[in-house]
Amino acid sequence: MVRMQYSICLAYEIRDQAADFIFNFHAAQTARQTIVAESLQLTPAIPTTLQTEPTLLNRHLRVRAPRGHLAINYVATVEMRHLLKPPQSLFEVRIADLPLDVIPFLAPSRYCESDRLMAFARREFGGYQRGYALVLAIRDWVCRYVQFIPLSTSEQTSAVGTLVDRHGVCRDYAHLMIALCRALSIPARFATSVNYGADPALGPNDFHAFVEVYLGNQWNLLDPSNGSMPMGLLRIGTGRDATEVPIAMIFGDVEPTRPRVEVQALTSAEPKADMPMATDQAICTW
Amino acid sequence: MVRMQYSICLAYEIRDQAADFIFNFHAAQTARQTIVAESLQLTPAIPTTLQTEPTLLNRHLRVRAPRGHLAINYVATVEMRHLLKPPQSLFEVRIADLPLDVIPFLAPSRYCESDRLMAFARREFGGYQRGYALVLAIRDWVCRYVQFIPLSTSEQTSAVGTLVDRHGVCRDYAHLMIALCRALSIPARFATSVNYGADPALGPNDFHAFVEVYLGNQWNLLDPSNGSMPMGLLRIGTGRDATEVPIAMIFGDVEPTRPRVEVQALTSAEPKADMPMATDQAICTW
Amino acid sequence: MVRMQYSICLAYEIRDQAADFIFNFHAAQTARQTIVAESLQLTPAIPTTLQTEPTLLNRHLRVRAPRGHLAINYVATVEMRHLLKPPQSLFEVRIADLPLDVIPFLAPSRYCESDRLMAFARREFGGYQRGYALVLAIRDWVCRYVQFIPLSTSEQTSAVGTLVDRHGVCRDYAHLMIALCRALSIPARFATSVNYGADPALGPNDFHAFVEVYLGNQWNLLDPSNGSMPMGLLRIGTGRDATEVPIAMIFGDVEPTRPRVEVQALTSAEPKADMPMATDQAICTW
Amino acid sequence: MVRMQYSICLAYEIRDQAADFIFNFHAAQTARQTIVAESLQLTPAIPTTLQTEPTLLNRHLRVRAPRGHLAINYVATVEMRHLLKPPQSLFEVRIADLPLDVIPFLAPSRYCESDRLMAFARREFGGYQRGYALVLAIRDWVCRYVQFIPLSTSEQTSAVGTLVDRHGVCRDYAHLMIALCRALSIPARFATSVNYGADPALGPNDFHAFVEVYLGNQWNLLDPSNGSMPMGLLRIGTGRDATEVPIAMIFGDVEPTRPRVEVQALTSAEPKADMPMATDQAICTW
Repeated sequence: MVRMQYSICLAYEIRDQAADFIFNFHAAQTARQTIVAESLQLTPAIPTTLQTEPTLLNRHLRVRAPRGHLAINYVATVEMRHLLKPPQSLFEVRIADLPLDVIPFLAPSRYCESDRLMAFARREFGGYQRGYALVLAIRDWVCRYVQFIPLSTSEQTSAVGTLVDRHGVCRDYAHLMIALCRALSIPARFATSVNYGADPALGPNDFHAFVEVYLGNQWNLLDPSNGSMPMGLLRIGTGRDATEVPIAMIFGDVEPTRPRVEVQALTSAEPKADMPMATDQAICTW
Repeated sequence: MVRMQYSICLAYEIRDQAADFIFNFHAAQTARQTIVAESLQLTPAIPTTLQTEPTLLNRHLRVRAPRGHLAINYVATVEMRHLLKPPQSLFEVRIADLPLDVIPFLAPSRYCESDRLMAFARREFGGYQRGYALVLAIRDWVCRYVQFIPLSTSEQTSAVGTLVDRHGVCRDYAHLMIALCRALSIPARFATSVNYGADPALGPNDFHAFVEVYLGNQWNLLDPSNGSMPMGLLRIGTGRDATEVPIAMIFGDVEPTRPRVEVQALTSAEPKADMPMATDQAICTW
Repeated sequence: MVRMQYSICLAYEIRDQAADFIFNFHAAQTARQTIVAESLQLTPAIPTTLQTEPTLLNRHLRVRAPRGHLAINYVATVEMRHLLKPPQSLFEVRIADLPLDVIPFLAPSRYCESDRLMAFARREFGGYQRGYALVLAIRDWVCRYVQFIPLSTSEQTSAVGTLVDRHGVCRDYAHLMIALCRALSIPARFATSVNYGADPALGPNDFHAFVEVYLGNQWNLLDPSNGSMPMGLLRIGTGRDATEVPIAMIFGDVEPTRPRVEVQALTSAEPKADMPMATDQAICTW
Repeated sequence: MVRMQYSICLAYEIRDQAADFIFNFHAAQTARQTIVAESLQLTPAIPTTLQTEPTLLNRHLRVRAPRGHLAINYVATVEMRHLLKPPQSLFEVRIADLPLDVIPFLAPSRYCESDRLMAFARREFGGYQRGYALVLAIRDWVCRYVQFIPLSTSEQTSAVGTLVDRHGVCRDYAHLMIALCRALSIPARFATSVNYGADPALGPNDFHAFVEVYLGNQWNLLDPSNGSMPMGLLRIGTGRDATEVPIAMIFGDVEPTRPRVEVQALTSAEPKADMPMATDQAICTW
């Protein structure tokens, strides 16, 4: 069990009479991630609505804010109990046996045009044994193929663009890996998180996008951009791709500032708590 | 109330040892569409699994078929009770008041890249009063802008491509209209149907894609390709775009043949049943 | 006759052992533009080669520079004798009568995908009388359609992208107008210039891209971005699109700085010289 | 020396009052290819204009044909004297030493978006020694990477599309190879030809697109689609990419039929003539 504290500060300048926001920055509450405590503070103190999607468990905070400055502070203490499994247990699930709510993650999506990458995926990965070995081959290929260049891509960059341009950030690695998995009939989805184990050389804590594939009757975490310690990823949102889990959807004339995110492992106060660590096991986080 | 009979015949040649199918050709059972009777027959007579998605009500038929020929025959008798509403009642729903399950239909999707069409939509439609008037303006613009040319597009054609190429089929009209609506923060989704009122000049009955927008706290039907009598559209699937509601997802080496579809209004045996007819009212089908 | 002085300062940091440059910043010498005097100075003082393309008259300066700093200063005094013609004289030239060296400007090019815009152009401009009226209609449409947003596009932005995104800079306006003209079988080409008449609100003098169309047996200047006084445009390069007339092609690991460009009308010393002025006539600059 | 006979039959139905054509099907007359005899016959017998571009030597036939049927028959007897060179002589030419008319073949073009493939090319081919070895590595990579599937692409398919889709015909192989060469600062161009040595399994003689790269102060032939015997390629047109050398540019409402092409080696009547043959030497055809 790993216990972490995650905090985020957001600030906006609203230039319209009012603006609407749908946020998805709350820590997710899942079978493997428990919210021990959390607090939310808005300035000005306006009413909010918090709802949880029944399937993907994303937590939507809706805010309608008046003209002027809006600041949001959120702090959560979260316990994560990742499940480690031996890689050989991650067999491919037959199409006939996939749960109904896994099916959507076989289809192409805005940033994961798996329909266009069918031939590419078959040619590049056709020789691998299916299952976890194939998925690791795709992850490693994406990790080598794409170059990490901050700010090299935009919000419109998709898997096909990344395949051509060969650079991007964690979100682009994730979209390309997801598209290749789906092109080979492996259900794959996108998750946003905060990244405890970030390489200090890459700067302060930040949001991090990772991939989950459905194998062995479970969703398993993979990080093709290799920029995190997977055991330290605290889940925020889960979806087909980045379109479904934006930190903030904004409706109106609003000037955002860059969010400040912090995450730290809490160990001293909790003798049972472990530090995130590296592992060769497969990691189930759902 | 309109009562219709819909039938479909599908045939495949499976060249692999076995192939998996996930079909979505069953008539939907919704608040406004009731399945009075239906029958399904497979040759060879292999087991199938039928499941209904809890939110969008799409009915997935899963089949794992052995090498050789597979034929499927489905017949359904369906009653539709479209709700007609005066257009002025279709006010815009504020973001803050949108139901949780409507939110996904604000985001871009594979074939509806609303994120790329923000500037276009604002420049082209910024002058209209919001609500149903704006939606009708978008529908009429798409109808005039795009030219109906059978077979002019592929399964990879998206709204941005249609904006450039200016031709397509019903599916392309629908994707472009949906993308423009979402770019203007109007929730919009895609539906597949069989088209009772098809213009005989366009050939036999066929599948038809239409659009639904969320206004006046309801989903409302719009048909930008103007190729149907909306009161005669029998719903099959509902989703973000065509990726979510393919008639058949096929896994394996399979040679399909073109499906045969038939739909007819049943009136003689049912004195209460009406014929589909044209209307100037707004049509709610959900 | 207008007499102008144009100067440019370029600076580079070469990090390789050596780097190659092919520049095209020299003022062009054409039938309507005479170089009265010019000087070129490089620091360090390394040898250069200057060549003029026989057809398009672009002047290529080749430099192979060693590691370290490279500075280039160029000053030219140029006389321009634009030819003004009554618009009604600009009839369409029949394909059969087009000079051989005009033919390439009917074909699509990297940034002007006229082959993809055939249907769009016919649908949007099919009703106009061919010739100068049609070309003015295209220019005015592009001017209204695209929004001028500095830095909104990249070096990879092409006409199709601008059609979708509806924003850009002078180069993007030019590419879209050229693509639409070629889609309608009107020869059109791209020119780089320095812009005497720049709106001071838009900042200092800068490079400016404009369009030429072949009508009335001549190349005629048009400026779809409306950001210049056409009579004050001093031509540098001419080509199919921006690919053919970059200010600098750079081969090697080189850090550029933003070029400084100045242009001013010389009148006091030259009693015969006029100031650039606005005109309703068609302008031939070739 | 190889002597060949090339014939082509073209037929069109002109539905407008008249239509214009600019053809480029004539055999090229170059330093290594001599036209011994040729004949041209049009039905109806309308006047034509034949011009040769001074740089690329493409021969443009212009025809303005009235409503109705147009048939064209062309036969040429051509002698080719390909120059074979030892591969080690094909050194890279320094940018500073490239002839002026080679420079355009460093820039991106409509179907060869080398500007987008810079990172890809550096990552994939950065480890090779420059010169002919690098060019052969690119050719072999393209040959393996792309799958030959007739009719799988359209006239709008470009190098970036082929990189993603991994299938195409000779023209697509050529565009991808050219784009990769230019991305690495190797001048590369496109040529159309008729293909003597076609694999009979691929059907009858047909047009064939090949690549030329500038190395060792000469243009050298390479065929990334591996569908020809290079010594048997009879050159028609030369250009930046397919946009510059279409067999026919058509202006007007015209229904084409598929051209019939034939080519055969003439040996019996000419004791000095050789048959085209395979070779490991580098082949200069210009």
